[in-house]
Amino acid sequence: MSHNTYGHLFRVTTWGESHGPALGCVVDGCPPGLPLTEAFIQGFLDKRRPGTSRFVTQRQEPDAVKILSGVFEDDRTGGPVTTGTPISLMIENTDQRSKDYGEIRDRYRPGHADYSYDAKYGVRDYRGGGRSSARETAARVAAGAVARRVLGDGIMIRGAVVQIGPHAIDREAWDWAIVEDNPFWCPDAGMVATWEAFLDETRKAGSSAGAIVEVQASGVPAGWGAPVYGKLDGELAGAMMSINAVKGVEIGAGFAAAAFSGEQNADEMRAGNGAPRFLSNNNGGVAGGISTGQDVIVRIAIKPTSSILNEVKSVTRDGEEVDVRTKGRHDPCVGIRAVPVAEAMMACVLADAKLRHRGQTGR
Amino acid sequence: MSHNTYGHLFRVTTWGESHGPALGCVVDGCPPGLPLTEAFIQGFLDKRRPGTSRFVTQRQEPDAVKILSGVFEDDRTGGPVTTGTPISLMIENTDQRSKDYGEIRDRYRPGHADYSYDAKYGVRDYRGGGRSSARETAARVAAGAVARRVLGDGIMIRGAVVQIGPHAIDREAWDWAIVEDNPFWCPDAGMVATWEAFLDETRKAGSSAGAIVEVQASGVPAGWGAPVYGKLDGELAGAMMSINAVKGVEIGAGFAAAAFSGEQNADEMRAGNGAPRFLSNNNGGVAGGISTGQDVIVRIAIKPTSSILNEVKSVTRDGEEVDVRTKGRHDPCVGIRAVPVAEAMMACVLADAKLRHRGQTGR
Amino acid sequence: MSHNTYGHLFRVTTWGESHGPALGCVVDGCPPGLPLTEAFIQGFLDKRRPGTSRFVTQRQEPDAVKILSGVFEDDRTGGPVTTGTPISLMIENTDQRSKDYGEIRDRYRPGHADYSYDAKYGVRDYRGGGRSSARETAARVAAGAVARRVLGDGIMIRGAVVQIGPHAIDREAWDWAIVEDNPFWCPDAGMVATWEAFLDETRKAGSSAGAIVEVQASGVPAGWGAPVYGKLDGELAGAMMSINAVKGVEIGAGFAAAAFSGEQNADEMRAGNGAPRFLSNNNGGVAGGISTGQDVIVRIAIKPTSSILNEVKSVTRDGEEVDVRTKGRHDPCVGIRAVPVAEAMMACVLADAKLRHRGQTGR
Amino acid sequence: MSHNTYGHLFRVTTWGESHGPALGCVVDGCPPGLPLTEAFIQGFLDKRRPGTSRFVTQRQEPDAVKILSGVFEDDRTGGPVTTGTPISLMIENTDQRSKDYGEIRDRYRPGHADYSYDAKYGVRDYRGGGRSSARETAARVAAGAVARRVLGDGIMIRGAVVQIGPHAIDREAWDWAIVEDNPFWCPDAGMVATWEAFLDETRKAGSSAGAIVEVQASGVPAGWGAPVYGKLDGELAGAMMSINAVKGVEIGAGFAAAAFSGEQNADEMRAGNGAPRFLSNNNGGVAGGISTGQDVIVRIAIKPTSSILNEVKSVTRDGEEVDVRTKGRHDPCVGIRAVPVAEAMMACVLADAKLRHRGQTGR
Repeated sequence: MSHNTYGHLFRVTTWGESHGPALGCVVDGCPPGLPLTEAFIQGFLDKRRPGTSRFVTQRQEPDAVKILSGVFEDDRTGGPVTTGTPISLMIENTDQRSKDYGEIRDRYRPGHADYSYDAKYGVRDYRGGGRSSARETAARVAAGAVARRVLGDGIMIRGAVVQIGPHAIDREAWDWAIVEDNPFWCPDAGMVATWEAFLDETRKAGSSAGAIVEVQASGVPAGWGAPVYGKLDGELAGAMMSINAVKGVEIGAGFAAAAFSGEQNADEMRAGNGAPRFLSNNNGGVAGGISTGQDVIVRIAIKPTSSILNEVKSVTRDGEEVDVRTKGRHDPCVGIRAVPVAEAMMACVLADAKLRHRGQTGR
Repeated sequence: MSHNTYGHLFRVTTWGESHGPALGCVVDGCPPGLPLTEAFIQGFLDKRRPGTSRFVTQRQEPDAVKILSGVFEDDRTGGPVTTGTPISLMIENTDQRSKDYGEIRDRYRPGHADYSYDAKYGVRDYRGGGRSSARETAARVAAGAVARRVLGDGIMIRGAVVQIGPHAIDREAWDWAIVEDNPFWCPDAGMVATWEAFLDETRKAGSSAGAIVEVQASGVPAGWGAPVYGKLDGELAGAMMSINAVKGVEIGAGFAAAAFSGEQNADEMRAGNGAPRFLSNNNGGVAGGISTGQDVIVRIAIKPTSSILNEVKSVTRDGEEVDVRTKGRHDPCVGIRAVPVAEAMMACVLADAKLRHRGQTGR
Repeated sequence: MSHNTYGHLFRVTTWGESHGPALGCVVDGCPPGLPLTEAFIQGFLDKRRPGTSRFVTQRQEPDAVKILSGVFEDDRTGGPVTTGTPISLMIENTDQRSKDYGEIRDRYRPGHADYSYDAKYGVRDYRGGGRSSARETAARVAAGAVARRVLGDGIMIRGAVVQIGPHAIDREAWDWAIVEDNPFWCPDAGMVATWEAFLDETRKAGSSAGAIVEVQASGVPAGWGAPVYGKLDGELAGAMMSINAVKGVEIGAGFAAAAFSGEQNADEMRAGNGAPRFLSNNNGGVAGGISTGQDVIVRIAIKPTSSILNEVKSVTRDGEEVDVRTKGRHDPCVGIRAVPVAEAMMACVLADAKLRHRGQTGR
Repeated sequence: MSHNTYGHLFRVTTWGESHGPALGCVVDGCPPGLPLTEAFIQGFLDKRRPGTSRFVTQRQEPDAVKILSGVFEDDRTGGPVTTGTPISLMIENTDQRSKDYGEIRDRYRPGHADYSYDAKYGVRDYRGGGRSSARETAARVAAGAVARRVLGDGIMIRGAVVQIGPHAIDREAWDWAIVEDNPFWCPDAGMVATWEAFLDETRKAGSSAGAIVEVQASGVPAGWGAPVYGKLDGELAGAMMSINAVKGVEIGAGFAAAAFSGEQNADEMRAGNGAPRFLSNNNGGVAGGISTGQDVIVRIAIKPTSSILNEVKSVTRDGEEVDVRTKGRHDPCVGIRAVPVAEAMMACVLADAKLRHRGQTGR
């Protein structure tokens, strides 16, 4: 990862600002011959799209993706399939309300990148956060759809919200079947009403809430990843932390492992079917940076939305003290819409790991 | 980061196995003209060295570093200084007890990379974990010493252990002055006796304990880092998670932020001296992936040492079920010796960020 | 350079096929605050545009560039200026004649990438060469315009054609003033008529001709480049050879140096104004991979256009023997339109070298 | 390639100065399970070793290589084989005559990197050229030996000198069988005596001579390489130009192609055995940046040795004018010892291309 590019062999470069004409990505290094259509990618973008419930922003962004290159509908092959050359994906920005940015132009919103961008660049597109806007994650989701094609149907990646504000789910009640049936990607049926009430209250109070998201990948074969600085968990951590508002990443047992004893933490093994059968998965599917064949499990902590109606203290570019209220249509809890983004990053990390593993070992 | 190389402009490539003749690193891209001696690097290696207390492994590894290239003692400049060319650092392995590896040769130790390395490569140096051994981190510490020279005296990086097993420090009691005066890098004087008793008990029970380490960097100017996939916190997360036994990384408030309200989490600002003065540091010194000028604060969760005397269930390479006890001189809590390693990774991440920022902006 | 990305700090990723909806590039890592408009970039694209004389292809491609991101017109700064974030540039393909590609769909045109792409990918966009089309170089020219902004006005990059077919210019007659006044970028007034006659004849004969192009950069300070695998001349060679149809690259005296004696080749020095004054420039402005402050001089050999009317022997995808004639509006000598492309690659290489040098040394 | 690292998946980082304690390289990303011994590598180093005839330098450098990591002699597998982890190779410098460097310390030798290194770094190891010394190429040759293992026995890489000074071989007389039987790697029996006389004369005159080297790789399958900035010929050009003293690179017909007609240059095809049979190889085995299955053919121009006994004009670091004579034991024609180096770079480029192709396509 560097600048705005993720990956080594499967490489994703994203571009675009919140209020520019468009945003998108270039996916380079994709294997050839994979079926890929705009409709397939759109399905994932629709999961991230705003306006789907009252718990996410009410902006209208259709986020319609266009494939500009790298896919060819060949009558010989019955395409459209990837050609192995760069896949350029573009999403036009349509809901750029013409409004007066004078207010945020010169004031630094706490929790946002306003000040740090100014400190770095001396100039910034302040409209809607510009490059630091979470709209960039739409391009990640589009790239993640391509990555899923690289991984194939044998690998299933899915995410859920496991905590909103102080309210954590009961993991014993986990039921993947209900995750798509509530507006929170919540896997615990008993928690849905609590979150509903909590977020309604939060929203009405002009505040916002944080969340914890968990992503699991099953079907990952043992052997992906690389020693030391190419560790699969290291790359997952970097990729997940690069998502807007993420402040923590853990793999498997994560921070809880700090309190375990060696015996509790050991993922014991018994004879399996051609491979060891693990009796637990505290490692989260990764040992020594290399996948073990178990589910790869990552959790990320997402801070409360920084854009809140309530006043917070700040300063202007010129050092004048001001109180900032952020009006507009903001997500009360960005953690919800982070689910498809985190899934996409998991897909990108695994796709790149797959190709690199195959390159080095031929398997 | 890829394979065994960390960094873009300040690049560190480590090599070596636990029981090979030597290990080391090549530091490429270092600015020229920086004073660098073996003694300076050795100081940091000595902090990581085993055998310094009964709470760490009793192996005898002097870990004496040699500079093989990239530094020149020029009588004109009064050297030795870096020349800007690759700095090759080597540490010879001296305590490779000749012993029978027959027992671990074919059995997979739970929590170790034995199985995943075999699954990936089909062959591995099983002596002491080979490449997956935490001995590799000696090379990181050596590279980190060079990185500190790149950062200069204005940036101070220091770490502490904030939790061992279930026993977390009282953050209100934090005192940097005592950190080097106890064998745990503990900043809370009231906790030292508790950890002593807990670790003695753990060790006698043939078990091991996890820990949480915090690293802080002060003096980092605002503006380092880059958008999206080159975010400073993303790179810190990747770098920290690449350290052996680390299972979680958080920046600033980290996972706790998930339960905060928007107001609680906002790092409010008031007019400062040429730059905003922040009233809190929940962001951990990074906003939008770019440093804010506040302290950069990272915490990492370290799982309990996987090598324990107590028996755990496992299988052999041939799929036979066995019980594994790991004899030898192991750290009861690897978190302690992780402190200088985590400091080194912080230094490497910041050094690379500094050079890239300077490259792009000229500042 | 890897896949479709050029550069380390100044990074250019190009995408697009000859007959897809559009092509373009993402320029990442550009310093902030540089003035940049579509009109500025368009000026360079117009130099490469087809249809400017009877000696280049008669296709109609306006090659109008759009800036989609990374530039912001800030009323505070009087923009538009670069923001330091990815600059996405797009050129829509407009002259995609709807025609029957059945003929070239299954037959391999000699000298083209038809067979090698099929061998690699198993699928390819055969319309107009798809990704292997020289249309990709429009994106390079657009990126090169950005690179010139990075270099600033102190560095002048300009190219000329020094040989077409067997007819080489008289270097003694070199006159930069006439280069833009003839359709060949010819610096030797005495050669223009010869090339005119030669190319008219070539075109009428249904054949094509090769060329040699020279690019010079003046004002490059001493010190850019890096040892060994980051050598400035190594990067120039890689970048130039990556241009379509280029088969040779030489720096300074180049291949002629093989016949020189040590004394002839030595670029002797005398005392200059704060830096040595070189008495010759056989090294082409680069010594040990690092710029010397002299003009950087590169020459590239361009093979004759592979698309010719005359029949050449070939085979189909199914191994059937066929004779191939390439109808259409092709450049009789692609070397002519290669001039702005080679200038652009010089600009990109130097811009990346500048930023990396500044990153490492602070100068 | 960047700084001192070559390659993407097969990555070589070299380090070391001419007169430091040692030099070497780290080869990362090598596939596991390949047989590798010091003796195998040594065979290639011996081809590059000085002192083998009166036409190369008379320095005594055994260049004995040590494998420090990445290879394991496993009694299960009958090793030693590569483990897939970094292979650290070291060559100790033994012939560092203790001499007075005062003379070259402050004066810039024309044709050397003395001035440009000082301009870049402000400090340099002036002993024997330090990092810019051609001794670095020993590390390349060692890495090239590993690369040959990656390529396997089906790919044969071999080089020859085709011109020394103004004397070019007769290509019709090419006979690989005699290349190892003369001190020049000359493939034309009729040329050996001429070169012998010419170089004896050159040496006695206190001068030096340039050369042209050709390297061929046969057995390369069609499909290696990648579009645009990952072109196989682009990477070969960059890699070859990075060798000390190289000033030109050409592929296939190279610069001669500029004078060809389209028909002459077309590599026509007829039906072959499962793949096209090419009737010529002007493309040098690469079309559109991707291998065609033909021999990959590269030629490089090497300038005359810059270290000559005859006086050349120069200046000191302080701007004083001096005349420089370079005493010592220098190669009269460095082109001769460049043959194994160029072969090694060909091997590294192809090994990296092989792994990347396999990664992307699975073939």
